[in-house]
Amino acid sequence: MRVGSLKLKAQLFCGDEPAMGPGKADLLDAITAHGSISAAGRALGMSYRRAWLLVDSMNRCFRDRLVETTAGGGQARGARVTGAGQDVLHRYRALEARLADVVEEDLKGLEAKLRSVPLP
Amino acid sequence: MRVGSLKLKAQLFCGDEPAMGPGKADLLDAITAHGSISAAGRALGMSYRRAWLLVDSMNRCFRDRLVETTAGGGQARGARVTGAGQDVLHRYRALEARLADVVEEDLKGLEAKLRSVPLP
Repeated sequence: MRVGSLKLKAQLFCGDEPAMGPGKADLLDAITAHGSISAAGRALGMSYRRAWLLVDSMNRCFRDRLVETTAGGGQARGARVTGAGQDVLHRYRALEARLADVVEEDLKGLEAKLRSVPLP
Repeated sequence: MRVGSLKLKAQLFCGDEPAMGPGKADLLDAITAHGSISAAGRALGMSYRRAWLLVDSMNRCFRDRLVETTAGGGQARGARVTGAGQDVLHRYRALEARLADVVEEDLKGLEAKLRSVPLP
């Protein structure tokens, strides 16, 4: 997430495994929009395998599954973000928004010391 | 920076170039502690070349130099964090601390939904 000159990354871990972060949150949004893992991955420029692995990781890291696949087979079958998934996504986005909000004041002092472009 | 299950990374950019982040902040701390770029790099397990490039990048990205090298030659010459460098480091650490502080409440709700270890 970008706030002025600052890039902020918040990544939630389950043990050593990243459970939720900017990429997984975007994938949940894309699954909601497109209704399948393959279409969501395509929209984000990632392979079906990569998107599937991210979904599997989320489903293994949280107590409740965040994504459910629906009847059918192969890459064409549908997927939806569960209620638990919507809740986790909402909380993650709220956390990001709070970080962005609180950092603005501190950031001004740092940005004042920064050049607009680096010296060569 | 780690806050419970959350990994937070704040990276300040000057144009497309990362100007300050966790690695550079640690390097400034190490230069203060060790008095030279090579010793600081060694303490952090990075090559002299890598440490030098990070210092050069900081000095090109901020209006005032954050690190000054002192008389001598080669890898043995000393270095010190300038007043401007101490100020930027202090502001960056304060920003990190504020992020960590504000996130704790939001984080509880997310952590409650997380397993302690991922399913296999």
